[in-house]
Amino acid sequence: MTELLDQIDSPDDLKKLSAPQLKVLADEIRRFILSSVARTGGHLASNLGVVELTLALHHVFDFKKDKLLWDVGHQCYTHKIITGRKDKFKLLRKADGISGFPNPAESEYDQFTVGHAGTAIATAIGMALGQTRQKENTKIVALVGDASIVNGVSFEALNNLGLVKRQLLIVLNDNSMAIDPTQGAVAKYFSKIRLSQTYEDLRKTTHNILEHMPVIGKTVDEAVERIKKGIRMVLPASQMFESLNIPYFGPVDGHDIGPLIQLFKALADLEHPAILHVYTKKGKGFHPAGTQPSKFHSTGPFKINNHKSGECVEVETAPKTGRPTFTNVFGRHLTELAEKDEKILAISSAMCDGTGLVEFRRKFGDRFYDVGIAESAAVDIAAGLARSGLKPVVCIYSTFLQRSFDQIFQEVALQNLPVVFCVDRAGFVGSDGPTHHGLMDIGYLRMMPNMVLMAPADETETKLALEFALSEGKPVVIRYPKDLVPKEKSVRTACAKPFKLGKSVVAKKGKDSAIAIVSYGSVLTEALEAAELLDRDGIAADVINARFAAPIDEKIVQLLEKGKAIITVEDHTAACGFGSAVLELAASKTMGGKQKTGDSNKLNNIRVLGAPRRFIKHDTRPTQLSQAGINAEKIAQTAKDLLEK
Amino acid sequence: MTELLDQIDSPDDLKKLSAPQLKVLADEIRRFILSSVARTGGHLASNLGVVELTLALHHVFDFKKDKLLWDVGHQCYTHKIITGRKDKFKLLRKADGISGFPNPAESEYDQFTVGHAGTAIATAIGMALGQTRQKENTKIVALVGDASIVNGVSFEALNNLGLVKRQLLIVLNDNSMAIDPTQGAVAKYFSKIRLSQTYEDLRKTTHNILEHMPVIGKTVDEAVERIKKGIRMVLPASQMFESLNIPYFGPVDGHDIGPLIQLFKALADLEHPAILHVYTKKGKGFHPAGTQPSKFHSTGPFKINNHKSGECVEVETAPKTGRPTFTNVFGRHLTELAEKDEKILAISSAMCDGTGLVEFRRKFGDRFYDVGIAESAAVDIAAGLARSGLKPVVCIYSTFLQRSFDQIFQEVALQNLPVVFCVDRAGFVGSDGPTHHGLMDIGYLRMMPNMVLMAPADETETKLALEFALSEGKPVVIRYPKDLVPKEKSVRTACAKPFKLGKSVVAKKGKDSAIAIVSYGSVLTEALEAAELLDRDGIAADVINARFAAPIDEKIVQLLEKGKAIITVEDHTAACGFGSAVLELAASKTMGGKQKTGDSNKLNNIRVLGAPRRFIKHDTRPTQLSQAGINAEKIAQTAKDLLEK
Repeated sequence: MTELLDQIDSPDDLKKLSAPQLKVLADEIRRFILSSVARTGGHLASNLGVVELTLALHHVFDFKKDKLLWDVGHQCYTHKIITGRKDKFKLLRKADGISGFPNPAESEYDQFTVGHAGTAIATAIGMALGQTRQKENTKIVALVGDASIVNGVSFEALNNLGLVKRQLLIVLNDNSMAIDPTQGAVAKYFSKIRLSQTYEDLRKTTHNILEHMPVIGKTVDEAVERIKKGIRMVLPASQMFESLNIPYFGPVDGHDIGPLIQLFKALADLEHPAILHVYTKKGKGFHPAGTQPSKFHSTGPFKINNHKSGECVEVETAPKTGRPTFTNVFGRHLTELAEKDEKILAISSAMCDGTGLVEFRRKFGDRFYDVGIAESAAVDIAAGLARSGLKPVVCIYSTFLQRSFDQIFQEVALQNLPVVFCVDRAGFVGSDGPTHHGLMDIGYLRMMPNMVLMAPADETETKLALEFALSEGKPVVIRYPKDLVPKEKSVRTACAKPFKLGKSVVAKKGKDSAIAIVSYGSVLTEALEAAELLDRDGIAADVINARFAAPIDEKIVQLLEKGKAIITVEDHTAACGFGSAVLELAASKTMGGKQKTGDSNKLNNIRVLGAPRRFIKHDTRPTQLSQAGINAEKIAQTAKDLLEK
Repeated sequence: MTELLDQIDSPDDLKKLSAPQLKVLADEIRRFILSSVARTGGHLASNLGVVELTLALHHVFDFKKDKLLWDVGHQCYTHKIITGRKDKFKLLRKADGISGFPNPAESEYDQFTVGHAGTAIATAIGMALGQTRQKENTKIVALVGDASIVNGVSFEALNNLGLVKRQLLIVLNDNSMAIDPTQGAVAKYFSKIRLSQTYEDLRKTTHNILEHMPVIGKTVDEAVERIKKGIRMVLPASQMFESLNIPYFGPVDGHDIGPLIQLFKALADLEHPAILHVYTKKGKGFHPAGTQPSKFHSTGPFKINNHKSGECVEVETAPKTGRPTFTNVFGRHLTELAEKDEKILAISSAMCDGTGLVEFRRKFGDRFYDVGIAESAAVDIAAGLARSGLKPVVCIYSTFLQRSFDQIFQEVALQNLPVVFCVDRAGFVGSDGPTHHGLMDIGYLRMMPNMVLMAPADETETKLALEFALSEGKPVVIRYPKDLVPKEKSVRTACAKPFKLGKSVVAKKGKDSAIAIVSYGSVLTEALEAAELLDRDGIAADVINARFAAPIDEKIVQLLEKGKAIITVEDHTAACGFGSAVLELAASKTMGGKQKTGDSNKLNNIRVLGAPRRFIKHDTRPTQLSQAGINAEKIAQTAKDLLEK
């Protein structure tokens, strides 16, 4: 079954294979990816789409010295398989296993640890300029999807491609679909071209390019002119890139490995930047990934019942809890609220499914805007909507919202506009690892005047927080993790109280307690568990559910005055986070009061638990939280240390 | 001299004027702006360029209900003059006067307080969608410069313009020059078009558009087709926008007020978004602004010696100090270091002059990259250069670097690449006001693992910091304000010691002092002055120059252990800043020691001085620092409070 694949230990082994052999190898790799991802979970559809493309690139270039830059990077599995990491797919995205994204720490074949869209062209420009300055002659290839190329960073880079006076090949991998169908004018433009092309046209284009490629003494401009004359069909596709002065080749078939190799050979020798437009099919070779692209973009483990029909079922890796995710709860409740309030609108940045908005979009198609991978514009559009008197809800993952920092500052906070930000995947995210953790949002948002920062601890609070945010008439941020909501019984009834601006709630009152655990968001469960652990050791602790990181409840600081020690807990970097805000408030006051801990030094009586200032790699979310010291055991231990010191 | 202008109290008064009268009015306004800016300083060249354009817009639209969205916004003076703010130009950008940017708090004619580039189209889309949902029929106009339209946010918005199914007019104000000449492919493309056009061509285009504008029953698409057939010249200019499916009109003359009015009347009735490409001349009517565009982009007060020749001299508003700015010192020293180290490169984002790189560019043209207003791509290009083994220095204002937050995180910090960030205009910036203050960089950068954060206090330290940063082999940030360096004698010799990672220096040692003032960056002068004030009252204080905000020197926290009270001082928000980092470090340790202050509560013995969580408006920089409580008097008072409490 994997005869050829078994012989591939490095890309050098590829180079010995003929085109027909590579075709067989591609099938083997496709089966390997399918069975591997079915077992471990991971990104599937995009990886099945670029098998031939990746093999052709590695057949032509030598990426031990040449540079291959992945955009987003979740489509790098074939690349990892043939660069010596095949055996590590058993632990894909797991502890001690390989990451699901490129990572220079894993292999010299990887240049950047990436996960966000739009960065490949700009970093490729930097590397090309660097190679020129260093007088190196390595080749540079940037592989960019059609969903990434519409991102503002990609465009800024394309606009600056003229800085490069040497070879730099951009492969535009056009598979007509980001995680959600790609939005916007460029996507429509690509799709118009795509629809006008038959398979025969693609073949003709390939031949035409090969025939007219520059030979010594002829410039690329002449070649492009000749190619255009050769096939009229190419003209509309080239228009956009032509206006940016970028030589454009294509579109060509990205699964036809023989011609692809010839094309790359020809394009590798150009002494200018150029773009090759390639069509691939997401989920190629696995029927369900084609029909349910959103489901098989990033999937958990699954079983294939019938290999022929491709029928498959999801494999339960965790016991069935019956509990929804925070994302589910948010999405459902927003849809419910929107039934009653016509002013509510939702804005997504190519993550309608991921942020739980599918039902909202189905019900309120005209109140839902997906702007594609364009987080900056998403926030500005929301600001315009809010300025018109509406209630836009912007739903973006914490890590991607970093792209909107400046827009949130200028167009929302400075104007004090009532935009609600639903910050999904806040905190540790598990298997996607450091590019995707949402560990900085509290810090970058709480510096801005006017912003209200909230974090619900459970299902009820998620609903109440959303209701509060939509009625507050101010910019409000609600953060929640990539996780199931906790069992209702684990959090106390205090969470059912309506939100009041800047007010915390008491989740548990310890008798004569000398210590209070103050938690922000879903880590309340850990705080409560810690209190139980302490209880068993005869130590009474209060548990406070802070609810707000801006403004901070003064009552939290008054606990110190009452002589209690405080431990703050959050799923965020300790730097600049919730606990840091508590410290700032405490330091701004002169406090009297007698310490119950016996230590009269109040700074000795506060501890901030949050993520350390280092990157924590892919693993399960609970393990990551533990590694960061954000769990019940660590809280309890910290409490004991505080009381015993 | 200002007969017509004197009659204009609101845009309604404009509507009564004929085109020839408006032409006279334009001249009067131009003289008004010139004499006003000569007196107060302000943005000049861009404002002289859009006088007719602004008058024509106000003549056609009713911006009390219609919405005019300015991109960047520094070109809004004519708009302010005719919307009832003429008399306030005496205090332009000064305390109690009007801001240099649009501001809804000043006038119902302003929609957004802006100052950063690229936001107008996206916010216009939001407002257009909002108007559609609210079933309002107000017109929307976004006025965007050619330097702004290449920004990633603009592009993301253009790509999403198709969301809008109603009128939305984008006026592309093409004056061929940002603050520095516009970079990139789009600029070249525009300039190619521009060079191919004679004045006669522009007139023809105007007539052609007017002739073929849609009448009832005809769609804009047909009109565009007819216009294109009418003038072949239009074709290349339209190509780029056509590929984005945006109806394009132009280019036309932006100073010919009669035809402009007719054009706006025709375009106002379109039921689709459209773009009108307009040529204007920066600094029109004032010769020196045309020949020295960078000087007269944003200028201090000046005197016109000879009105005919336009000869003029800068007026000294402050006594001559002979001291350079931090920017000067940085720029000169970088150039010196670059002589010795070929690996040093500089990257600017349309601010070569503003960041002090003119000399560097002159000497090392092939090691200098200006990417235009594209801060995100600038950082990614730097990351690529660093990955190639070079030493890129990215020079961006603190407020604009907010655009690069995600790139600094993923492409620099996560990869631990040795990119040096020279963060100019860090802290309060004076007359530009809240859009331009750089008050959040410490916070958003210190959350990221691997980043080293530094701030020099004087000229010597600026040089030493740069040398240290370039030799450290890590991502390093150096922040400094828009200010003169302090007098050498005002800071102590300690500043002349070479930098050691994470090590502070003692700037002044007080005898048996019970208090230490710990300052970060140029506010060291305030800290030293405070120590002198305290000295006069018989209170001894240490002054520590922290030098690093990440990592923080443990010695600072040990001062508490030694029984001293601490006051931290920084030109940054108190939230998440340097002082906050000191608090975090202090809270992470259990400390013994006896308090000299008599207050055993260590949290009572730290005070963090920094900007409050509110926006501080345009004024002089010293006043803004005072308003934020970041000055010697406030430090001294805080010290007394701490010791007396």
